[in-house]
Amino acid sequence: MWGIIATWRMALEGLSESASALAAGSAASTAVVDAVATVEDFPYYKSVGYGGLPTENGDVELDAAFMDGDTLAFGAVGNLIDIANPVRVAHALSRQRYNSLLVGQGAREWALEQGFSHKAMLTDRAMQHYRKRCRETLDKGLSPYDGHDTVGVIGLDKHGSMSVATSTSGLFMKKRGRIGDSPIMGSGFYCDSETGAATATGVGEDLMKGCVSYEIVRRMAGGMTPQQAADSVVFELEDKLMSRFGRVGDLSVVCMNRNGEFGAATNIKTFSFVVATAKQPLTVFRAERHQERTHYHPVDDEWMQAYAARIRAPIED
Amino acid sequence: MWGIIATWRMALEGLSESASALAAGSAASTAVVDAVATVEDFPYYKSVGYGGLPTENGDVELDAAFMDGDTLAFGAVGNLIDIANPVRVAHALSRQRYNSLLVGQGAREWALEQGFSHKAMLTDRAMQHYRKRCRETLDKGLSPYDGHDTVGVIGLDKHGSMSVATSTSGLFMKKRGRIGDSPIMGSGFYCDSETGAATATGVGEDLMKGCVSYEIVRRMAGGMTPQQAADSVVFELEDKLMSRFGRVGDLSVVCMNRNGEFGAATNIKTFSFVVATAKQPLTVFRAERHQERTHYHPVDDEWMQAYAARIRAPIED
Repeated sequence: MWGIIATWRMALEGLSESASALAAGSAASTAVVDAVATVEDFPYYKSVGYGGLPTENGDVELDAAFMDGDTLAFGAVGNLIDIANPVRVAHALSRQRYNSLLVGQGAREWALEQGFSHKAMLTDRAMQHYRKRCRETLDKGLSPYDGHDTVGVIGLDKHGSMSVATSTSGLFMKKRGRIGDSPIMGSGFYCDSETGAATATGVGEDLMKGCVSYEIVRRMAGGMTPQQAADSVVFELEDKLMSRFGRVGDLSVVCMNRNGEFGAATNIKTFSFVVATAKQPLTVFRAERHQERTHYHPVDDEWMQAYAARIRAPIED
Repeated sequence: MWGIIATWRMALEGLSESASALAAGSAASTAVVDAVATVEDFPYYKSVGYGGLPTENGDVELDAAFMDGDTLAFGAVGNLIDIANPVRVAHALSRQRYNSLLVGQGAREWALEQGFSHKAMLTDRAMQHYRKRCRETLDKGLSPYDGHDTVGVIGLDKHGSMSVATSTSGLFMKKRGRIGDSPIMGSGFYCDSETGAATATGVGEDLMKGCVSYEIVRRMAGGMTPQQAADSVVFELEDKLMSRFGRVGDLSVVCMNRNGEFGAATNIKTFSFVVATAKQPLTVFRAERHQERTHYHPVDDEWMQAYAARIRAPIED
């Protein structure tokens, strides 16, 4: 068996290549890192890598992580500025015994020392998005914090090894130095080849309160199907935060077990994900909540065309 | 009932004051933050706050966190430079809806904006420690990474509210930008007033692989005593890392449940902790592992005097 699953439609092109590689016998670690790097490189995604939204200081601060489910080794970066592929830096850090979570200037220095290249990650389009958002929110006295589409990719290879990788520019309009769940072990990602893996996207500040990725993997280890684990963790956390904290942000997850079975859960209206396994041709699904369960179905051509038009649409001034 | 427990002997003075405050009806949040701030202020502890060891760049980069067990709200800082009390910044961040985990320059700017004061945190003594360690390790081609005494304090107040706070200068000789488990939700700390709380000290890179604080609280919620939860989580993680990763670092934890019952576990020779509750006078305990269980007993005067002499001893050149 082999399989690969990722958050959001934006992962489709990367998953297409990595699914072929896994089918041909490639390692899960390479498959997830390459898939995430493809998303990082695509300039039209304003929430990941090149073209990501800047902070109020005008820097694009990127977070990424990688975890090897065989050894539980991980590497992660936070607030990495102007390095082309944060996920490749995270992957390299996972081979370090110590200092495997590095942030800010220290992360950047380490990456440059290791031979990773400088790349100016701010695009004109991202600056236009940023200014538009300022006009629509801050200038009207509204909170600018909304939107957060992290890419998270889980891979299972034919040898039974699993890996997970994440990458994001974080919460839209985040403050300088803010870190969300994406580089945080247990929250944004978790992977154990003996059980399965999970990865999250949404409001990191809330996802962390439930250690959602760790908890989903734990429930799969306890016998739940991936779908049961995903739904129960997301909706229990939503209920808990509503009763204890009085509000809750967006929470979306995908997961896969060691048999290539997968699950997805979301508390928002439109959450898309992409999956391919030895049994499931590459498909983009749209997930919707129905009370405390998540249903999903393949998207149609119309949805795909609307998506393609939307991400490339001119930004109105 | 009320109670307070903390990692390491160094928390004694802070706990003494906070135990009195809790006995008089103070809030757990104030008690844990004040106790940690007392440790941060004491110049002779080279692993927390003022007097902490610098990174290779000569900056003292401090990590801290606070979590409110009633709301699950948290705040945390990483790599905060030259602000007197990182734990008070973390506490202030826990009142923010977004951007509650801030690192590096962004954390520093936010702290200064909020009125926290600049304070040069590097002492001559810490520089002497740093240079001595270079001579003993790096200059001989040895790994300098060892030692990590994080202070973590859990409080339970008479109203049934619980909180946890942590503070550390991190792994000795860490790289610039390195973050350990102390500001990471679920790993360095977790707190739920309906169940209990846990906090960890040791090699952050390994503690994170088990989300140890979250998992201890979860096991207490499932019916384990604090001691059972602490021992089972520490020794299962040790076994797992030995078999999967081939090595394991220091892992030590303390925890307390909502009834003021407490537990501690360690996989190292000497781990001290401090506790006081409505039933237990303020006591410093020394914990030792016996196979897969942790035993502890009060330290004697000789131990206390040796400790006092050791932390103030001149640093040999």
